[in-house]
Order: sequence, then C-alpha cells, then structure tokens
Amino acid sequence: MIKVGIVGYGNLGRGVTLAVSKAPDMECVGIFTRRNPESLTPAVDFPVYSMDKLQEFKGKVDVLLLCGGSATDLPSTTAEILKDFNTVDSFDTHAKIPEYFKKLERVGKEYGKLSAISIGWDPGIFSIARMLFGAVLPDGNDYTFWGKGVSQGHSDAIRRIYGVKNAIQYTIPKEDALLKVRNGENPDLKTGDKHLRECFVAVSDGADKALIEKTIKEMPNYFADYETIVNFVTEEEVKERQQKLSHGGFVFRSGNTTEENSHLLELSLKLDSNPEFTGSVLTAYGRAVARLAKEGATGCVTVYDIPLKYLSPLSSAELRAHLL
Amino acid sequence: MIKVGIVGYGNLGRGVTLAVSKAPDMECVGIFTRRNPESLTPAVDFPVYSMDKLQEFKGKVDVLLLCGGSATDLPSTTAEILKDFNTVDSFDTHAKIPEYFKKLERVGKEYGKLSAISIGWDPGIFSIARMLFGAVLPDGNDYTFWGKGVSQGHSDAIRRIYGVKNAIQYTIPKEDALLKVRNGENPDLKTGDKHLRECFVAVSDGADKALIEKTIKEMPNYFADYETIVNFVTEEEVKERQQKLSHGGFVFRSGNTTEENSHLLELSLKLDSNPEFTGSVLTAYGRAVARLAKEGATGCVTVYDIPLKYLSPLSSAELRAHLL
Repeated sequence: MIKVGIVGYGNLGRGVTLAVSKAPDMECVGIFTRRNPESLTPAVDFPVYSMDKLQEFKGKVDVLLLCGGSATDLPSTTAEILKDFNTVDSFDTHAKIPEYFKKLERVGKEYGKLSAISIGWDPGIFSIARMLFGAVLPDGNDYTFWGKGVSQGHSDAIRRIYGVKNAIQYTIPKEDALLKVRNGENPDLKTGDKHLRECFVAVSDGADKALIEKTIKEMPNYFADYETIVNFVTEEEVKERQQKLSHGGFVFRSGNTTEENSHLLELSLKLDSNPEFTGSVLTAYGRAVARLAKEGATGCVTVYDIPLKYLSPLSSAELRAHLL
Repeated sequence: MIKVGIVGYGNLGRGVTLAVSKAPDMECVGIFTRRNPESLTPAVDFPVYSMDKLQEFKGKVDVLLLCGGSATDLPSTTAEILKDFNTVDSFDTHAKIPEYFKKLERVGKEYGKLSAISIGWDPGIFSIARMLFGAVLPDGNDYTFWGKGVSQGHSDAIRRIYGVKNAIQYTIPKEDALLKVRNGENPDLKTGDKHLRECFVAVSDGADKALIEKTIKEMPNYFADYETIVNFVTEEEVKERQQKLSHGGFVFRSGNTTEENSHLLELSLKLDSNPEFTGSVLTAYGRAVARLAKEGATGCVTVYDIPLKYLSPLSSAELRAHLL
C-alpha cells in the first residue's frame, strides 16, 4: 500500500480525499491543515492533523499531495516540504512554471526527494494532449479552450485583493473562435481571442469598487490579456454559485501530412466538479511519484517525464493485454 | 541527426516516408523493399534498396520503421530484424500483442536492441487515452469507436484469402451506441454492439464467392465478433475506393468521482489519410526509440513505457515553457 498524506483541505483537498479513498492501493496517513484540526470534518474519515505535526511523519509517508493554491501557497511552501517528502502539486501559473521547476529540481536532487508539479487537467491532461498532438502532427496549429467553467486559480487571485470578501470567476470560450477551429480554418488566435473571463465579486462595506475592478482587470498572467467582465454581487450570490464547480475544455490540433490531407485531433473534458476531477488526477500522479521515488528518481518531473504505466494500479502485462 | 531506415513501401511506408522528410532532426538512409528497387518511385527522393541489402546497414541506422502488415509480415520478420536494429512497428492484432511483446522483449534484451511495438493511432494514441482516462477516472467505463473509415489491417486480411483479387473494408460506428455513450448512460456494449464492418471485395473469375464470404465472416480477431456485410464488386470499384483512406474514431471515458458528480472525457480523431497519420505517429516514436536506445534501453516497449518528452524534437525546457 502506498502511504499518502494530503496537505490543505479546501475544494481541491476534498477532491483528493475522495480520490484517495477510492484507490485500491493507497492508504491515507492524514490530512494536514493550517486551520484548527478539530474544526475540520473531512468527506472521508481520515485523521486530521495540524501542519505543525507534518515533520513527525517524515519517513512514514510515500508521497504528499499538496492542495494549496498557485498564487502564494505553493511557491512559498513546496520547496521547504520537498526537503523531507516526495510531493505532487497542481501549480498552474503557466508563465512561472520554468522558475518553479528549476527551484524544485535543485531541492529535490539535493535532498533525494521527487516532486511532480503542474498536475491536474490544465496543466496536466491538456499538456499531454498539446505535446503528443504536436509530436505526431508537426505541421499544424494547436488551440486550447477552457470552459465554460469556474477557474479556482482565478477566483482565488481575486479573493486575495484588499476589500474583496468573496469571488468566483468563469472562463467562457468564444463561440466564433471555436467554430473556426472545428472547421479546420487554422485561424491565428491570441489568448484573448479565444475566451472571455466573467467575475462575480462580493466586497466589504465601503470598499473601492473602481480600484478593485482595475486591480482585477490589470492583474498579470490572470486577467491582463483577456476581455474581463466584473460584476459586483452579494456574498449570497457568490456562495450560491460556488456550490457548482463544473468546468471543461478542448484541446485541438489541426494540421496536414500532405497538401491534400488534413487531420483534426481533439481532446475534450466535461467535468461536473473541477476540484474532484483535479483531485483524482493528482492522486493518480501520487501513485506514479511513490513508485518512481522507490526506484530512486529524484528532482522535479512533469507529465512529460513520467511513463504513463506508472499512473495505473494495473501491471504492465495487464495494460498490454487489456488496454493497448 | 537521427538516422532512419524505412522497411516496406506500401501505404504505410509512403506515409512514413513523407513524415520522415518533414522531421527536422531525421535523415533517411534508405527505403528497403522486397520488390525490385528499380520499380519503386518513392514520394520523397530517398535511396531505395532491396531487403537483401539491409544487413549492410548494420551499425549505420539508429532506428528502422517497419511498415509491414500485422497478419504475417511483422510476426514473421520483426524478431529477426531486431537482432541487428532498433525497430518501431504498428502491430495491431490486439489479441496477439502479449505474445508478440514477449518474443521481442527476449530478443531485444539478448541482442541489446530496442523495439517499440503497436505504434499508431489504435493501438497507439487511443491506447494512451484509454489508459490515462482510466487512471484519472477509475470509477467509470470506457468506449472505443472506430470509423467510419478503412481499416488497412482488415482489408489486408481479406486480400490474403484465396480467390480474392482486391478488397477494402470500412469500420462503421453504430449511431445508437454512440448516442448512449455521449448521453452518459454508461451502456454495457460488447465489441459487436458498437460497430459494423462493410467489405467491398473483387474476386478472380470462377472464385467460390460463398466460401470467400464465409471465410471473411468467420475470421477470428478480425471479423468473427462483428456484424459483417460483404459486397462483391469490380476491381475498378475497389481501386476507386482505395484512393481515399480516411478514418477516425473516438475514445470515451464516462464516470463519477462522487454519486452526484460525473465526468465525460473524449479523444477524437478525424483523419483524411489513415496511413499518412499512422506514418507520422510511427516517425515520432522512431525519434523516441533512437533516443532511448542511445541511453541504453533494450527489450520491448509500448506507448505506456515511453515518457512523452522523447517524442518531441523540442527540449524538456522548451516543452515546460511553451506546452505545459
């Protein structure tokens, strides 16, 4: 049995908890939280500890599944945690991945631990599709569309702005762009041509709404390159919208092998719950990291470095016989 | 530059030839054929040699891309070729993969060579989707649909029957089954519930049509488990149909993370030319085999064993920066 620890218990932590409980080859040693452990009732009856106790589990956990956010949690904590534990995380600030990788690669090698970063569906499953599609159809273009759905990273980023009490953000594909791609027109689309971002924000009494709206719309990486709509609403409305965390998206590659022969490759996901599905992906990569670490792998890896067989509880012989 | 040899020049060999000519990091040492090399004019101006000359290229080729058929070519020749060369092939008789793997794993280890088998889109890209989808959404069902399109393996199998001059076979998804899956009904579908197989066959004068039809319909692995329609037509009609080798298909996984939250994952391919796309996939895996062999890997591998980064001409740092 693979011994797993879960760090953080927000939406993603809950999703990971559910996924670990369903894995036939995993047991959870505990959920670690910065909150008062007594205050937390997890979806599955796993033990809950304060983050302060994490050190006591050194040598007793095969892999930690890190469920913090990409804006501040992961950049400020993963490298420290990696000194003592193998880790998997869902770091999704695309622009900062190279820098994040570099740091964890150095720490992992130095301390003999393995870290898998940017795991989930994008980055993650979609990254696999982009790379694989590009390798097998080199003469072409690829297009990633997200939504309609809630982006937790973007919602999180808004909530960190001074004066914001709660917020939720929807990423919405632009229909005309989607149509052009499906028709094989190979359009030239910038990031902002493919999506708009709609935000529902609840603010504190007396907050400077104009400043908050400006701060959102100009936030680098998250909003600056997009058409962004900001709606100020009640806390109740935000809360109601937060009950349904559905998401999805498409990766297309459209290209040619000869002038006359074109091909369209498409991966699409329709997800009722983004954090539950992301948690399920994190858990499969937890299995891979535990196995690779056991074989002596150290440093930092992404979905591009891990042979797919490591993700499955089935043996290689079973995979060849039943899935190949 | 990776030195590549192409073995066999049918439809797939032509597709591989085109793909190798587009790869920025590959050069083709030659196309090897059992026919008279003089009689062959390849799509790209690569040198053409008789198969008898292959031995002279020992030590001068990083990887051979084998373009023979799965019914007899590959089972009878790959193991022998592997003694002297690293290989990639598209072996697609699903039921016989374990046995084929076992033999090549033994030969590859003994002779210090590497063989990647069952590369293409199914087995290949679709196998990746089935495994990956299952690992990240364990509580669910998966469904593979092929077509509408020509299956070269099945056409080939018909052509080997005594009395058949030429033949082409279309695999056609059953619409009602496709609809049930898309609706998330999680239906219980046997292989034959998802597709029908339609064959257009031209026979020699005086051939026993009834016996040929019976031989097709009862052929194990290929037709026995399917509703099969056999049409006897002129050689001209078969030839005309052979001009357009389009194909495609879908891999679905439909499942749940909790009782209330379900998810639908889908990979779909729409291909104008099955052999050109398959050839393009074979070429990407040729790159991977050449690199892995250089690192000392031996034996037999499938798409499940090869980290995806090996398929791309881009560096790992470039992949992380631009595609992750």
